[in-house]
Amino acid sequence: MKKHVVIYDTTLREGSQCVGISLTVADRIRLFNELDSLGVDFIECGLAGGSPKDDAFYRELANIKPAHAKPVAFGATLKPYEDPEKSPMFKALIDAGTEYVTVFGKASEFQAREILGVTVDENLMMIEKTVSGLVMSGKKVFFDAEHYFDGFSGNKEYALDCLRTALGAGAECVVLCDTNGGVLPYRQREIIRETLREMPEIEGKFGIHAHNDSGAADYATVEAVIAGAFMAQVAVNGWGERCGNANLFTVVPNLTLKLGYDCIPNLEKLCSFAQRACEISNTKMWDFSPYVGRNAFSHKAGVHIDAVCKNSAAYEHVAPETVGNSRRIMLSEQSGRAAVIAKVGELLPKLGCDMDSAAMIIDKIKELELGGYRFEGADASFEMLVKQLLGIRRSWFILNTYKVVVFDNDAGEKYAAKQPSQDPDNSNSMTPQVPTASAIVDVTVDGREEITAANGIGPVDALDKALRKALTSFYPVIGRMHLVDYKVRVLESTLATASVVRVVVESSDGTNKWCTVGVSGDIIKASFDALVDSYDFMLDNFGEKN
Amino acid sequence: MKKHVVIYDTTLREGSQCVGISLTVADRIRLFNELDSLGVDFIECGLAGGSPKDDAFYRELANIKPAHAKPVAFGATLKPYEDPEKSPMFKALIDAGTEYVTVFGKASEFQAREILGVTVDENLMMIEKTVSGLVMSGKKVFFDAEHYFDGFSGNKEYALDCLRTALGAGAECVVLCDTNGGVLPYRQREIIRETLREMPEIEGKFGIHAHNDSGAADYATVEAVIAGAFMAQVAVNGWGERCGNANLFTVVPNLTLKLGYDCIPNLEKLCSFAQRACEISNTKMWDFSPYVGRNAFSHKAGVHIDAVCKNSAAYEHVAPETVGNSRRIMLSEQSGRAAVIAKVGELLPKLGCDMDSAAMIIDKIKELELGGYRFEGADASFEMLVKQLLGIRRSWFILNTYKVVVFDNDAGEKYAAKQPSQDPDNSNSMTPQVPTASAIVDVTVDGREEITAANGIGPVDALDKALRKALTSFYPVIGRMHLVDYKVRVLESTLATASVVRVVVESSDGTNKWCTVGVSGDIIKASFDALVDSYDFMLDNFGEKN
Repeated sequence: MKKHVVIYDTTLREGSQCVGISLTVADRIRLFNELDSLGVDFIECGLAGGSPKDDAFYRELANIKPAHAKPVAFGATLKPYEDPEKSPMFKALIDAGTEYVTVFGKASEFQAREILGVTVDENLMMIEKTVSGLVMSGKKVFFDAEHYFDGFSGNKEYALDCLRTALGAGAECVVLCDTNGGVLPYRQREIIRETLREMPEIEGKFGIHAHNDSGAADYATVEAVIAGAFMAQVAVNGWGERCGNANLFTVVPNLTLKLGYDCIPNLEKLCSFAQRACEISNTKMWDFSPYVGRNAFSHKAGVHIDAVCKNSAAYEHVAPETVGNSRRIMLSEQSGRAAVIAKVGELLPKLGCDMDSAAMIIDKIKELELGGYRFEGADASFEMLVKQLLGIRRSWFILNTYKVVVFDNDAGEKYAAKQPSQDPDNSNSMTPQVPTASAIVDVTVDGREEITAANGIGPVDALDKALRKALTSFYPVIGRMHLVDYKVRVLESTLATASVVRVVVESSDGTNKWCTVGVSGDIIKASFDALVDSYDFMLDNFGEKN
Repeated sequence: MKKHVVIYDTTLREGSQCVGISLTVADRIRLFNELDSLGVDFIECGLAGGSPKDDAFYRELANIKPAHAKPVAFGATLKPYEDPEKSPMFKALIDAGTEYVTVFGKASEFQAREILGVTVDENLMMIEKTVSGLVMSGKKVFFDAEHYFDGFSGNKEYALDCLRTALGAGAECVVLCDTNGGVLPYRQREIIRETLREMPEIEGKFGIHAHNDSGAADYATVEAVIAGAFMAQVAVNGWGERCGNANLFTVVPNLTLKLGYDCIPNLEKLCSFAQRACEISNTKMWDFSPYVGRNAFSHKAGVHIDAVCKNSAAYEHVAPETVGNSRRIMLSEQSGRAAVIAKVGELLPKLGCDMDSAAMIIDKIKELELGGYRFEGADASFEMLVKQLLGIRRSWFILNTYKVVVFDNDAGEKYAAKQPSQDPDNSNSMTPQVPTASAIVDVTVDGREEITAANGIGPVDALDKALRKALTSFYPVIGRMHLVDYKVRVLESTLATASVVRVVVESSDGTNKWCTVGVSGDIIKASFDALVDSYDFMLDNFGEKN
């Protein structure tokens, strides 16, 4: 039978203390439901009474019926002589309506004295009073022992006393926190072993909460589980204060695949969950993220690509499918001909690409990469380029000229325009609803010239609409197509606004998705090049027969 | 006396196998010199004979006189029956002209048989012949024992034989590689201990090369050093295949500050080195990077900010100055009034901000953050906003209107335009040299209206030039100002081209630098708002007395 480890997710609480993360109430509800579907055991829900947003979420929580996960309200210990009856935080913890509550308190003499400014006895009293008060109110309590590892090194007996006090007051479990993230795993392991020797009653009753300030949060969590922790606190992408917390996406596969623990039911859904979590929080996944990152199973050096094509175990520690990821062959100046032939075979199976053509394609890729292109994430542009080079790219339209006029609709009202609406959860409220650009596009199709114009929000939107209008009259299928993502990367940013930009456009016809790329000193031209590739790709692959 | 550990940097070799990294010969030379100044011991220099770029770098190397670091040429083992005299790789290793050479070979029965397709004896012969051949040619040789940890678990005796063969053939040191990155540090530690028991002669003669596929490369490197490794292989930002290698910026401070090793002479220069390395390679530092990342000492939750203001040890594992980083107080919806007052005091020391004003500022920040603003990295815009809200923002100019016309200079020549020049190291070669936009700006200063126009490469460049022209006639000091960075982030990318974009502009007058931010559905308007803040900030802080 597999050993089980409890996964406790703190994304909605500490994750929202992460720089760059700002979750609306609606985001939190969606994330809560996603985490529940993934199968985590506990979901920490933000500081009770911490902000109107937290309050609103706790109110919504009453309407959520999780399939598996238990929500946990989060709060601080009472002040030394504070009356629980009169503490808004204590009241908020009770009112949160959850079966489980986590309270954090100092498990360090230094932190109690110097930071809280209380005596060591007052600090123990704070822990005792808060935990027992919550237990008497019918709550199951987890105690986050802040600064435990540093506290242990400073005054071992006192740190242990803090744990004893919490357990004595009725806490279900104490969570050993490396709050400042500075204690390396070998030292955490020593402290956990010594704690177990001194306090055998803690066995099966302690969890781990690690921080990544020394770059070891993920592994420290794994080590603590090996040492006996029954609960691992993690966050989506490791979001948290400073360098973040332990990363759900690294800890869970390591425990499952390397150590045989039973954590979440469907590990192969991890990657799609990760993608949705990033979408909900409007962040980008870190490409180099183990297991779930875009690069986790990407191979770039020619020798690696050749070997992985023979046998994936050559350069992959686990099969990408186990976490729902996939292998990516990166075409770059380091690619060999075999990699190009494999890639062309994948994209254009009917085509066939000989060694000479492959060499020509590699030369062109090297040239374009020097200029800022990357085909790594833009297969549709790569396909168009290959067809171009092999002389089989069909010209669906000839672009004669384009012009865009950009104007301001709110000159002189700069700060007035910064006023969003009063709806705190509508983060679209800043989008101007009036056009700010007009585009004119002149194209020729089958010898017939067509000039169209369109308004849009910003120049790229206007251009896209004008080109779409022009082409739809010739190719109605274009009407099905829309843009799903648009990314800009400034490449030579020391040249400031005249720098080179790379634009990646993701398009869809409702069923298929494809990515194209454009590079130029002018963002409009870069965008337009990516759009033209996208229309051509659509007409080549998903258009009517012509 | 401090223990010394040898730092071996592989940025120029494995770092360039990292997705997204593409280093020109000039980049490599600059990075080499920077690494030498930082004080690393060895610098691995790319695959000898691997590409024309590698060849060009090795030729340049003859002209570089490092102060401390030793360059290392890198190559593969010979094939089983290959004549060294006729091997281009072997010849390239000799011709590289370096005192030290690293060769990589398989230290795993599985990899030798299944991936190389050779017998176990042939593989040993490859190692023996290559190492002894290089030694006889006067080289000092390091042997990268690829897949050592996996190989040891599969067939321990054979993995040890590979090490024995390399040392027997005269290698200075064997480097234990977790090539696939799948072996957790506790298992690496076990294997290193067992290796030392079986082969005591390896003591002081082995290094570590870790990969981050399990999220533990940095810590595995530290553990190996604790277990006796005398050399740590690292790369800038952990660049490398897939999820990367051990990160120089995490490993070195951990070894120095946590374990008392002597690695590089001036740890406090680490952050500025990291910044330059990112500039050279045209990449962004990962904000969450331990020690050197922007967020490494950033505090966002109100309780953390309050505590750190009292005593930095409250939530910092080391002092930021030890690695040349600094503390950042993040203003966000989670900030308390104390944080805002502290920040206003820092930016506008003469101003003074009472609790009511702080509350008003927090409310406005929350509103703007909901709309996509982030003031975290844009202190100059924050200062302008505070002045605006307190009614003390000076209006240096009134913007009446602007208009931009964008046009194409190469319609119909799409692919011709993608042809860069033939100079392989000029990555600017794609920048169009002809203007693609004209802007008209109408401003009023002291009741006098001024209409100006300018051409530029792209609409933002044209707008900036037109506005600068208009303002310089009133405020000549503007002539000193220029833009040093321009970043675009698409926030609501599911809305495609009509999505909300956040633009961050970094400006300088040659002495000072400041950042401003603009947000809009229209990239032109967002850029323009950031520019206006930047001009106002310049005139407020660095203009002549008016």
